[in-house]
Amino acid sequence: MHNGPQPTDLGDVRATNRAVVLRHVRDHAPCSRADIATHTGLNKATVSSLVAELIGYRLLRETGVTENRVGRPATMLVLDGEPYAALGMQVSADELVVVAIDPGGNRLLTWQRAFTTLTATAGETVTALAALARRALSRVTGQGRQVLGLTVGIPGLVDTTGAVPLAAALGWHDVPLAVDLRKALREPAFPVTVDNEANLAVLAEQRHGGHADTADLVHLTGTAGIDAGIVVAGRLLRGARGFTGAVGHLPLDPTGPPCRCGRRGCLEAYAGLPALVDRLLPDPAQDDPVTDFTPEIDRIRALARAGEPTVLTGLAETGRHLGHGVALLAGVVNPATVLLGGHLATLAPWLLPAARAELAERTVAPDTGGCHLDASTLGGIAAALGGATAALSTIEAGRLPASTGG
Amino acid sequence: MHNGPQPTDLGDVRATNRAVVLRHVRDHAPCSRADIATHTGLNKATVSSLVAELIGYRLLRETGVTENRVGRPATMLVLDGEPYAALGMQVSADELVVVAIDPGGNRLLTWQRAFTTLTATAGETVTALAALARRALSRVTGQGRQVLGLTVGIPGLVDTTGAVPLAAALGWHDVPLAVDLRKALREPAFPVTVDNEANLAVLAEQRHGGHADTADLVHLTGTAGIDAGIVVAGRLLRGARGFTGAVGHLPLDPTGPPCRCGRRGCLEAYAGLPALVDRLLPDPAQDDPVTDFTPEIDRIRALARAGEPTVLTGLAETGRHLGHGVALLAGVVNPATVLLGGHLATLAPWLLPAARAELAERTVAPDTGGCHLDASTLGGIAAALGGATAALSTIEAGRLPASTGG
Repeated sequence: MHNGPQPTDLGDVRATNRAVVLRHVRDHAPCSRADIATHTGLNKATVSSLVAELIGYRLLRETGVTENRVGRPATMLVLDGEPYAALGMQVSADELVVVAIDPGGNRLLTWQRAFTTLTATAGETVTALAALARRALSRVTGQGRQVLGLTVGIPGLVDTTGAVPLAAALGWHDVPLAVDLRKALREPAFPVTVDNEANLAVLAEQRHGGHADTADLVHLTGTAGIDAGIVVAGRLLRGARGFTGAVGHLPLDPTGPPCRCGRRGCLEAYAGLPALVDRLLPDPAQDDPVTDFTPEIDRIRALARAGEPTVLTGLAETGRHLGHGVALLAGVVNPATVLLGGHLATLAPWLLPAARAELAERTVAPDTGGCHLDASTLGGIAAALGGATAALSTIEAGRLPASTGG
Repeated sequence: MHNGPQPTDLGDVRATNRAVVLRHVRDHAPCSRADIATHTGLNKATVSSLVAELIGYRLLRETGVTENRVGRPATMLVLDGEPYAALGMQVSADELVVVAIDPGGNRLLTWQRAFTTLTATAGETVTALAALARRALSRVTGQGRQVLGLTVGIPGLVDTTGAVPLAAALGWHDVPLAVDLRKALREPAFPVTVDNEANLAVLAEQRHGGHADTADLVHLTGTAGIDAGIVVAGRLLRGARGFTGAVGHLPLDPTGPPCRCGRRGCLEAYAGLPALVDRLLPDPAQDDPVTDFTPEIDRIRALARAGEPTVLTGLAETGRHLGHGVALLAGVVNPATVLLGGHLATLAPWLLPAARAELAERTVAPDTGGCHLDASTLGGIAAALGGATAALSTIEAGRLPASTGG
């Protein structure tokens, strides 16, 4: 009894209609009240009342522009959102990132702070996240903006309370991240949410990326681990408990290299950041385990550009494993496009040819339309950008901002 | 720009509202026009007009019952649908199935006809399907019902035109099934649609099965092949081209037994119907390749009931491979429940213990709520039942039946 049209309860109707109006203006601005009524099927009185309310909250504003057409000239509406901001953060292998956007999707700030996440304790990471969040909050509230919320992306399992039962890539077990962050921010009522970084990254792709029109889209994180954020028919695939997209441990070869999950030959054991650096740079710049990956990835890229044969061979081999993993994923969820993120995007020019060949080879009936594999254009901050986008979601769903906040 | 509320165009509004009314009555009958207005947010005049129209089409009817409460007594409404039927069919390894239901979900007929699909040509199968469909059509039209449509489930890839580019389990390539069936039925305007059998089977689970309330549900077909019908958040996961759920060829062990896909160690190479019969009955009743599987599965079940040790060991081993395959699937789409269908359901008492153990063993953070694995209760006709359900979907989406038909 779940598919088909959903009856709404009365309390939701006004919020839903508000969301429909906001969305129409986002997609079609500038537009008039009459346009909104015509295209949404809402009656004009309802539209007028909703628009008045949204103007009152400065989520919409009138422009001086009027349309010349038969009938009365109309006052045109555009998105406002000037008094608001939303924050997103991500915890990558060697940095913390914070992004702020306004409700129109404009980027207000993007800060990347080096941090050795893989050797820090969860407590140290939370403290560093909170410090970075406070600086960002202070910056945007200093611009006179109310901050609607903060969403943090984590490479691991995240439950509905914003706790992290397991983030193997970070060595985290049972970290009540949302609660701890609210405490560290000393703002117990501030809306902090936590999500899997891949889910946030694909949300950023959908809204801000180069394939925003693709309804069936996957973003493969190449940050600390390899997770898939999966959008199907325009909606994020969340699953029963929110634990979707665990592709890093799809088995490619049970006799392959050991994986930190305890098995062998998982996708991450070939193409995860630590595995890739180990295999391509058997003689790393330092003797200790690598914790700062960006310079190592830069070295790999420089060697690849210089045509170093062992690095090129290693990247092609990694590409083949990636293509294999993508083929398994594509067989289950059949995306139109899979985008490589994080360090996989940085190395994409050398990974993609072999990855695409392997994917085509393993696709059933590839001539019926295979899966397109490409690099993300969002840089290494897709999850943070998606987090900020997610933090706008209550507004976009038609809920009004609290009158105090930020 | 795909998530969030969808603005509707004006032409859809009445159909959507009609669907909302039908759905409300389906879930809450008997109910009054005022109940519908209160719970759907539609105004009373709209509800009255829609209800009058639906009564005119005999999709709703009034009962004599009135409610005793404050205010005027109300005429109560229930689903009608008496003048209509919908057909579903499936092509299994050793039989063709047709099911007819009415819009209330009542089963009108269920016919299973033995047919050696695996050795027949596609043309022979289409001819046999058409003959069976004509008999079923004749039966239900003889009851005075208009047949709204026929949906056929196929173990393979199905494109949006109802053609089958590939059904490896049947040896089919590029079969324009919907077109051929319409031709064979000599009713070019009759609504024939084709879908992957797993998609239809999970639709049947969702509407008629023992886990109808589960929003994140998978049905694993155990008929000719092993495909997954995947429902996520109450919606069928279709993917970019409708080719989702190809789990039969998830690789469990590249050094495993050969698979008909040309690789080794795929899930189907362990738990597919031909593989299972070969491995558990190394001395089958006949010498030729098995084409009639039902008696062989019955023999396996009888041997298992008698405690035959090699059969029990073989079933447990198959169960472990199934659990492994389900774990991979669960890592990607995170269903609450996976149901084994077809012959896997028949053998479930001996497969499930080992399958569940393997699934738990391979689940990341199983104590956060794992995936429940069980047998389907729909017998071997889930896809045909889902096909009949699918053939009702245009009515349930608010489209009115054509005034001539059947």
